[in-house]
Amino acid sequence: MKIYADHAATTRLDDRAYEAMCPFLKGEYGNASQLYSFAREPKKALKKARETIASCIGAGPSEIVFTSGGTESDNWALKGTMMFRKGGVITSAIEHHAILHSCKTLERLGRSVKYLPVSSSGVVTPATLIKNLSEEVKLVSIMYANNEIGTIQPIRELARISHQHGTIFHTDAVQAVGHLPINVKEDEVDLLSASAHKFNGPKGIGFLYIRKGVKLDSYADGGGQEYGLRAGTENIAGIIGMATALETSCNLMQERTAHIISLEKHLLNELSAFGLDFIRNGDKQHIPGNISLSFRNADGEALLHRLDLMGISVSTGSACNSTSTELSHVIEAIGLPNEYAFGTIRISLGYENTLEEIEMIANALRTILSA
Amino acid sequence: MKIYADHAATTRLDDRAYEAMCPFLKGEYGNASQLYSFAREPKKALKKARETIASCIGAGPSEIVFTSGGTESDNWALKGTMMFRKGGVITSAIEHHAILHSCKTLERLGRSVKYLPVSSSGVVTPATLIKNLSEEVKLVSIMYANNEIGTIQPIRELARISHQHGTIFHTDAVQAVGHLPINVKEDEVDLLSASAHKFNGPKGIGFLYIRKGVKLDSYADGGGQEYGLRAGTENIAGIIGMATALETSCNLMQERTAHIISLEKHLLNELSAFGLDFIRNGDKQHIPGNISLSFRNADGEALLHRLDLMGISVSTGSACNSTSTELSHVIEAIGLPNEYAFGTIRISLGYENTLEEIEMIANALRTILSA
Repeated sequence: MKIYADHAATTRLDDRAYEAMCPFLKGEYGNASQLYSFAREPKKALKKARETIASCIGAGPSEIVFTSGGTESDNWALKGTMMFRKGGVITSAIEHHAILHSCKTLERLGRSVKYLPVSSSGVVTPATLIKNLSEEVKLVSIMYANNEIGTIQPIRELARISHQHGTIFHTDAVQAVGHLPINVKEDEVDLLSASAHKFNGPKGIGFLYIRKGVKLDSYADGGGQEYGLRAGTENIAGIIGMATALETSCNLMQERTAHIISLEKHLLNELSAFGLDFIRNGDKQHIPGNISLSFRNADGEALLHRLDLMGISVSTGSACNSTSTELSHVIEAIGLPNEYAFGTIRISLGYENTLEEIEMIANALRTILSA
Repeated sequence: MKIYADHAATTRLDDRAYEAMCPFLKGEYGNASQLYSFAREPKKALKKARETIASCIGAGPSEIVFTSGGTESDNWALKGTMMFRKGGVITSAIEHHAILHSCKTLERLGRSVKYLPVSSSGVVTPATLIKNLSEEVKLVSIMYANNEIGTIQPIRELARISHQHGTIFHTDAVQAVGHLPINVKEDEVDLLSASAHKFNGPKGIGFLYIRKGVKLDSYADGGGQEYGLRAGTENIAGIIGMATALETSCNLMQERTAHIISLEKHLLNELSAFGLDFIRNGDKQHIPGNISLSFRNADGEALLHRLDLMGISVSTGSACNSTSTELSHVIEAIGLPNEYAFGTIRISLGYENTLEEIEMIANALRTILSA
C-alpha cells in the first residue's frame, strides 16, 4: 500500500484537468498566436482559461500572465520589478528559495535586501515590517503561506502597510492558491505568484497576477505573447489544465478543507495519545493539511526513509549530507530547540487521503519512534 | 478539407510522444526532486530523457538543461552570459525576436550589440563576422536556420571564427533541431537553444545545450534542479514528450526529409508551370519544407486569409495594421524589391503533408493569384 502525504511538494493531476488538456495535446495543436482559423480553438480556450483563473482570485483577465510555474513567477516578480530600478527589497527569512535566491541575484546587481525575522510560529508581524520600511524600499515580497510549516501571513495588513509607504507588494502564493479563498482586490496585493501542480494542475505551468497599473519589465523577451510581457508559444494544454484544476479546487474548497482538517486533527490526536514527544510547528492560521512535526531526539531524514520503506511519502525539514545534518532555513528561523529541530518531518495531506491512511501514518510513526 | 502547412510555427504532437507522456500526467506524478521511492520513476525517466536528447545532438547528458521552450533558452543564453559581464554582443539582423528583444534588454543594461547584415539569400557570411569581431565582443549569437526563409547558416565556420577571437558562440537552433543532423561537438558551439513543439514534441518545453566548461548564470533562481542552473519542479511529462519526439525525429529524419524535399520541388514546379511571377526566398542550404514565396504585386496577409478560407494554413512575411503594412525584419534584411516583398507568404511543410495537399495548395494559389 502506498500513501502519498507530500501534497505541498506536488499533487496528482485532477481527472477533469487531464480530460480538458487532451484535445489540446492532440488535434487542436494550432499555434494560438497565428492568424488562420486553425488557431481559433486554442485562442478561444486560452481566453477562457485566463478568465477562469482571474475569476478564481478576484482579478481581471488582463491581470493574469502565464508562466512556466511558481519559480518563474517569483523570479519575474522580483527581477521584473527591481532589475532596472534602484532601491531596496524587503522579504522574510522563511521565503521559498525561488524568492531568497532571486534576492541574491538582486544583491549582485547592487540592490539591498532585508530578510525579516519571523515569530516562533513563523509569522512576519506588521510591526516588524513597519520598523524596516524606509523610502529606499521599492518592493516588499512576503509569501502568502509557508511551504514547510504552513503558516499563513497577515497578507492584507502587510500589503496595506507597504502601500502606505509607497512600496509595491508581491506575495508568493504558491502554497495558498487553490487551497485558501484568495481575493487579490481585497488583499490589495500588486503581484501574486502561483503554480498549477500545487493545486492538482499539471507541472510546468503557473501564473503571475500583475495588478493593472503595476509596471513590470518583461521576463522573457521575444514574440508578443502575454501582452508582450512573457514571450514564447503558449503552452495551451498546460494552461487549460491549470484553469480546470483551479476552478475545481475553488468550487470544492470548502468540503475538501473540512475533510483535510478532520484528518489533521485525527493524526495529531493519535500521536498525542501514543505519548510521542513532539512539537507541531507553524501557526494556528495555516494551510489545511500542512503538518510540520518535530519529534524530540529523532532524525528527520532517517524518519523519512523509514516511512518510505513502509510505503508512506512525506518530506523533511533537514537534510543530511556526508559531513553534517543541515536544518532548513525555515526550521532555523522559527528557533526550535535543537533536540526537536533535527527530528522534523512535513506531512502534507490532500483531499484524497483517507482516515484509514491517517491511522496507518500514525501507527507507522509510533512503530518507528517507540522502538 | 484542412491542410496544415505552417510547421515552422508549430507541429502536431507525435503519437509516441503523447503515449510516453501519459503515465507521467497520470499515476507517476511524484516530484522528481524528492527523496522517497515514489519519486523514483520520474527521476529515472528524467535521467533517461536527458541522455536521449543529449545523444541526439552529440552532447553529454550533463550539458542538457531543460527550459520552458525556445524563447526561454534564447533569453537565458544571452542574459545568462552577459547580465554580469561587461562587453559586447554580435548577432544578426534576421534573428528571431527572442534573440533581438533580449539584445534590447542587454542594451538597456549597458551592453553594446551589433546586428550583422545578411546576404540576399539570408546568409551571415564569415567575412562579415570577422570584420565585426573585436576584443570587446564576449558573445556571438547566430541562428542555426532562419524561421521565415529557412536559410541555414555556416554555423561551424562562424563558431570557429568566434572561438579564434575568444568569444562564446550561441546558436538559436529552434528551427533546426529534429530537422537537420546536428552535432554540437563537430559544430563546436558553446550554447544551443531548442524547442520541443517545433519537432512534434509538446508545447511549453525546450532545452539549452551548455557546453561543459562554459560559465552561465542561472536563469531561474530557486531549488537545485537542473544542476542548480534552472530552478523549478521538473515538467516531467513535457520532458519525456520532448525526448520521445526528438528521438523519433532523428531516427526518421532521412526518409522524412526526402519526402518533404520531393513535395517542395513539386510545389515549386507547379507554381512555375502556372506562370506565376514569384521569388523563392532563402538559400540553397535551407530547412526542408520551409518555403518562403514572394509573389509580385500581391498582398501577403490577404493571401493568407484567402488560403485560410480554402482550408489552408500558412504564415506571412508581413502584417497589416490599421494604418500600414509592415514587412517582417527578415524580408526587409534580405532586400527584396518592394513589388515582391509585400506579397510574401511562408509555406512550411511537415512529414504528414501529402502530394495531394501540395496539388491543392498550388491550385489554390493559382486561383487566387490569377484572378
